[in-house]
Amino acid sequence: MKRSIYDSDHEAFRDSVREFLDRQVKPHLEEHVAEKSMPRELWLEAGKQGFLGLEIPEQYGGSEAGDYRFNAVLTEELAKVNMALPSCVGIHADIVAPYLVHLTTEEQKERWLPRFCTGELLTAIGMTEPSGGSDLAALKTTAVQDGDDWVLNGSKTFITNGYSADLVLVAARTSPEKKARGITLFAVEAGMQGFSRGRKLDKVGQDESDTAELFFEDVRVPSANVVGEVDNGFIHMMQWLPQERLGSAVTNLAHAAQILEETIEYARERKAFGQSIGAFQHNKFLLAELVTRVEVTQAFVDQAVIAHTQGELTPIDAAKAKWWTAQVQNEVLDHCVQLYGGYGFMNEYRVARAWRDARVTKIWAGSNEIMKELIGRDLGF
Amino acid sequence: MKRSIYDSDHEAFRDSVREFLDRQVKPHLEEHVAEKSMPRELWLEAGKQGFLGLEIPEQYGGSEAGDYRFNAVLTEELAKVNMALPSCVGIHADIVAPYLVHLTTEEQKERWLPRFCTGELLTAIGMTEPSGGSDLAALKTTAVQDGDDWVLNGSKTFITNGYSADLVLVAARTSPEKKARGITLFAVEAGMQGFSRGRKLDKVGQDESDTAELFFEDVRVPSANVVGEVDNGFIHMMQWLPQERLGSAVTNLAHAAQILEETIEYARERKAFGQSIGAFQHNKFLLAELVTRVEVTQAFVDQAVIAHTQGELTPIDAAKAKWWTAQVQNEVLDHCVQLYGGYGFMNEYRVARAWRDARVTKIWAGSNEIMKELIGRDLGF
Amino acid sequence: MKRSIYDSDHEAFRDSVREFLDRQVKPHLEEHVAEKSMPRELWLEAGKQGFLGLEIPEQYGGSEAGDYRFNAVLTEELAKVNMALPSCVGIHADIVAPYLVHLTTEEQKERWLPRFCTGELLTAIGMTEPSGGSDLAALKTTAVQDGDDWVLNGSKTFITNGYSADLVLVAARTSPEKKARGITLFAVEAGMQGFSRGRKLDKVGQDESDTAELFFEDVRVPSANVVGEVDNGFIHMMQWLPQERLGSAVTNLAHAAQILEETIEYARERKAFGQSIGAFQHNKFLLAELVTRVEVTQAFVDQAVIAHTQGELTPIDAAKAKWWTAQVQNEVLDHCVQLYGGYGFMNEYRVARAWRDARVTKIWAGSNEIMKELIGRDLGF
Amino acid sequence: MKRSIYDSDHEAFRDSVREFLDRQVKPHLEEHVAEKSMPRELWLEAGKQGFLGLEIPEQYGGSEAGDYRFNAVLTEELAKVNMALPSCVGIHADIVAPYLVHLTTEEQKERWLPRFCTGELLTAIGMTEPSGGSDLAALKTTAVQDGDDWVLNGSKTFITNGYSADLVLVAARTSPEKKARGITLFAVEAGMQGFSRGRKLDKVGQDESDTAELFFEDVRVPSANVVGEVDNGFIHMMQWLPQERLGSAVTNLAHAAQILEETIEYARERKAFGQSIGAFQHNKFLLAELVTRVEVTQAFVDQAVIAHTQGELTPIDAAKAKWWTAQVQNEVLDHCVQLYGGYGFMNEYRVARAWRDARVTKIWAGSNEIMKELIGRDLGF
Repeated sequence: MKRSIYDSDHEAFRDSVREFLDRQVKPHLEEHVAEKSMPRELWLEAGKQGFLGLEIPEQYGGSEAGDYRFNAVLTEELAKVNMALPSCVGIHADIVAPYLVHLTTEEQKERWLPRFCTGELLTAIGMTEPSGGSDLAALKTTAVQDGDDWVLNGSKTFITNGYSADLVLVAARTSPEKKARGITLFAVEAGMQGFSRGRKLDKVGQDESDTAELFFEDVRVPSANVVGEVDNGFIHMMQWLPQERLGSAVTNLAHAAQILEETIEYARERKAFGQSIGAFQHNKFLLAELVTRVEVTQAFVDQAVIAHTQGELTPIDAAKAKWWTAQVQNEVLDHCVQLYGGYGFMNEYRVARAWRDARVTKIWAGSNEIMKELIGRDLGF
Repeated sequence: MKRSIYDSDHEAFRDSVREFLDRQVKPHLEEHVAEKSMPRELWLEAGKQGFLGLEIPEQYGGSEAGDYRFNAVLTEELAKVNMALPSCVGIHADIVAPYLVHLTTEEQKERWLPRFCTGELLTAIGMTEPSGGSDLAALKTTAVQDGDDWVLNGSKTFITNGYSADLVLVAARTSPEKKARGITLFAVEAGMQGFSRGRKLDKVGQDESDTAELFFEDVRVPSANVVGEVDNGFIHMMQWLPQERLGSAVTNLAHAAQILEETIEYARERKAFGQSIGAFQHNKFLLAELVTRVEVTQAFVDQAVIAHTQGELTPIDAAKAKWWTAQVQNEVLDHCVQLYGGYGFMNEYRVARAWRDARVTKIWAGSNEIMKELIGRDLGF
Repeated sequence: MKRSIYDSDHEAFRDSVREFLDRQVKPHLEEHVAEKSMPRELWLEAGKQGFLGLEIPEQYGGSEAGDYRFNAVLTEELAKVNMALPSCVGIHADIVAPYLVHLTTEEQKERWLPRFCTGELLTAIGMTEPSGGSDLAALKTTAVQDGDDWVLNGSKTFITNGYSADLVLVAARTSPEKKARGITLFAVEAGMQGFSRGRKLDKVGQDESDTAELFFEDVRVPSANVVGEVDNGFIHMMQWLPQERLGSAVTNLAHAAQILEETIEYARERKAFGQSIGAFQHNKFLLAELVTRVEVTQAFVDQAVIAHTQGELTPIDAAKAKWWTAQVQNEVLDHCVQLYGGYGFMNEYRVARAWRDARVTKIWAGSNEIMKELIGRDLGF
Repeated sequence: MKRSIYDSDHEAFRDSVREFLDRQVKPHLEEHVAEKSMPRELWLEAGKQGFLGLEIPEQYGGSEAGDYRFNAVLTEELAKVNMALPSCVGIHADIVAPYLVHLTTEEQKERWLPRFCTGELLTAIGMTEPSGGSDLAALKTTAVQDGDDWVLNGSKTFITNGYSADLVLVAARTSPEKKARGITLFAVEAGMQGFSRGRKLDKVGQDESDTAELFFEDVRVPSANVVGEVDNGFIHMMQWLPQERLGSAVTNLAHAAQILEETIEYARERKAFGQSIGAFQHNKFLLAELVTRVEVTQAFVDQAVIAHTQGELTPIDAAKAKWWTAQVQNEVLDHCVQLYGGYGFMNEYRVARAWRDARVTKIWAGSNEIMKELIGRDLGF
């Protein structure tokens, strides 16, 4: 069904994103794969276009869109290229940004935000630990106050942008006895003594994103780098969950919808037994089902985007959007691979990469199981 | 997610429907089951409330709402009671109504519409034939012109309201050589010589609706009862498909959502092994999934309702809403039955009836397979 | 794939069962529906044929087959007719029989078994309670010793054969403090003071079986009617679970396989749009999938039958067979209904009844959820 | 359920395969990945153990097992390591072998079989073409007789062992007007003028196997290298389909079963929120379902193995085993990945590789859609 949530301003913005992608990004995708990372030039160029500062006030160099639909448009267009782009850009511009705007002191804002917007200060967020998974209460990284510093010890894993980030927002336990209520956020910066990173992880998909393990060995973080209130990190993290989950949902669906569109085109052109493969009734019905599934899901995601734009999206509704889109994305892409036959198993085909890339969306950003647990609790169970 | 398509006028109308249902309908549901039919009093009372004439101009006694959302509200509230109510009322007020308003002569309007609105003239529509199923081009009922009359021969089956209807809109072949383009619609009225009906069919569900086979043996239908243009019946029928399919979709989802809500309540109250059955993680996740599925689908149906209100709903998008909701409804209800355990297999439980009632929605109103065929063709296959 | 577990003796026995069904049963099926029960004549005739005493030693009038494959053949043939037959006969001849043979005193054997084999003493088993579902530890029916009698109080529900049984094996709590280890089995006989039955329950399917609620109000059961050891009823019940679950599995699959076969025949004969409906690729693929699913499942059930014949079937493997076949049966039948189109919703069609009949198999005999719980525990969780 | 198709001879053979794998193969798996190929030493060592000649008469150096269960045991053990091993070895020893034994002249046997058994002559089979997929009638590679030679032109793709094979059995069109009945098989050997190969294909999974595109440009193949009858290649290929499909089925299931077993172990050891992740009811039920699904499928595959050992496996029953196991394998592995959380997306985890490896099994060896088409035709549609 025709979508109706965007107006001409959003569409003009979409055009500028597309032009950026066509000129600056798409010609270099194979280099990103080879490097397992996107080059700093890409970030700087995105910064120049104003894409990194949608959440940042103008006085600090941001574009301060004040309308989540611009974030959504940016995310959609990135997701049409691959999963790594919206993932890496989203961590920086959609997920870390609100922390640095709403929890920071004036001094911190001035210190970080201008370079955040230009892409000079690339960020990441460090929550997940090797032993911990989705269980924040089991956090083992600790920070102990020592004079005006905090001394961090521990490690984080599966950190998107982790290898190249200049600033990582790290959750550490500051009051061990207080469980989830004893966690604080620290801005750990590249070059701090004792802060090191593992190699870029060898992942099933999203080859273009640098994902890494981070190690903290007696890292002295000055108090000036505490973000938000001490011991209040868990609450802070809860606050921006809707936006994080919604960003995942927008990504998942835009990515699947794009590949489905390309697959339908392929099914029109590819012949077998004398006709378009899409004309075989089995495939025809299948494509009809997938198109329906994507459009039904789009209606829900669009409703969520509007709700979030109005400041009314609940974490639970965002959780619904997150798990559902991840499920839909994976199912749709698996069928798309099948329609390509043997080519669907070849990495030179976009559908093959898309299928690999998407597998993690049911796992990350709060696994689908965690989402269902939360929704179930919300029902009173 | 919170719905936003209705305003206070719609909600006031909803209240009036609810009051009608609470007072006039719900106390008599078991009688409907026993009679395999709803009594004429119910229709007359619904007529008195203005529920039957939403599509009918005021000058003929209608309430001429001019806003499909009132139809949707009526349908939703009926569907919360059971499937037979929206099905029987919908055939009359949502499906037959547009034919009688838009294809009729002034004389026909005056003859039929006032009693249509009061419930005195109960209607049905006769397309499906025993041998034909979804294949309109295979229609075997014929009408041959003889003087100023047409002589009808043939039979129809699975006709909702068929046993009690005073007027049945019958599709008959008038130009055999022209296939689908040689079909004409006739208003066959109770009492016409040669028009008879079989017994009320013994169905798997929807015990409350009278569904019957209709027989036409040399029935003389005067030309004054031709509805629309001769040989143009197929085109006429295509025209109101979006509304028919959307009505199905609204019904399917409202019905499933209501039973799911009741099931969640049951899962809170019913204990096993010392806790609410909904608190077992398997059930908790399942209910989280079902709630998500219903809300995702609601977003799509609501989008379709708005599109239809604006006159922009395509038959293809309506087809998507039809098959998808039928699928969701059946899956949701099957899980609800399971949550009730042995009680889910007992007819005295609403969930058991709902499960039986819903099975037909994947079959009727254009089977889900036909919907997928149409959507697939629309993709170019 | 061709099955290979039966030899010519089993097939000869199969012929005799078929003849019995053709002559004595099939002509009267509609009467069973009308009566919500099978007449005693059917039981007596089955007894005459030796079908009820397969588990009973010859000295007490049984046919003492000593080879579970005869039970399986009987069950399969009954299941091809409908679900109620194998359910009612199975409760008596497969489920109650082992209790009466292996746990009883010589006096009890002589008192009950001969009439058990002739069909004069029809039996049922009473475990499930209105408030309890699958939770045996929550059993509320109590039995208190008083002189040489036990005084029973409580109620049971969903009891197959419950309305017509002459002897009901009732599980009651005899040592409240010992939870599952304080349960005893009693043979409650028709006519005992204080033993009454509710009406035949109005079920979603299996109209032909009499299912009832049983009430015990100070029923004095003589010690001579205690079956097995006092307080050891739970252990006793565990012992014959493999046979009960396997009987369910054999029933579920034979029933689904039969209806699928009939549906394939229908799909060959029924035409639409100028060809057999089975020739549409969507249906062709679907039927290919269903046939595969049934045959794959048959291989597992056959393996289980052989294991049980050799005394080696574990309760866990039987649990796998039970839940899996119930799931397969319900999925297969739902697709079969769809292939019949509107006729699939009409009770006069076997497929419609089969669909309704089968719904309970995911719920009873230990719900599918309970089966998964047990299998999961067996994995060490 | 306990399997029962193997006796002590098979189990002794299994031990020898395991020892070979532990000593000669497992220590080098990462090298296979890096090389996108298995080294010739592995083949020579497998030859030394007699694993390559199970189908080959002793007089030509084979072990002539004469019992398919040895092939099945070999396949199972290879599949427990990864998918590439049974795929590469299977093409050579299970799929090409029967052609070289049953269609060849005495001269050909002597020329090829001894080195086939030692692993010196590595083979592949070339059917699929870039434009053709599953449609053999559309074969474009041609062979034209010229004196005592045939001149081949065309290309093949997705050829397992294609890069390293010494002899490729190539299907080429010899009588263009006779469609499927005009195809002949040629043994094209490494070094023949005009026979070249593309690079090793970059696949989604099975990194260890060398898969390549093959090109034939005026390749002169001597008549002595025609395998079987001229124009009869299609019939020849049909003949060994059951063994090819069964080999796929055995592989698919053994691979999935092994990874599931490892995942269950992981679910016992990995803790979250204070307990084993397998103890969460959602996971517990899921694992119960997967174990059941695998065991049910095993029963069917074992039945097929026995049927094939007895020479009675039909191509249709083999098709059922092929598609069903591919489906089960992919579903099981997807759930296994999910249970590993973020680690399931890391290539250093076996489950991640397994998931990638398995994706092609729904596509190759006759796609699952082709299998369903064939089964559907067998039903008369």
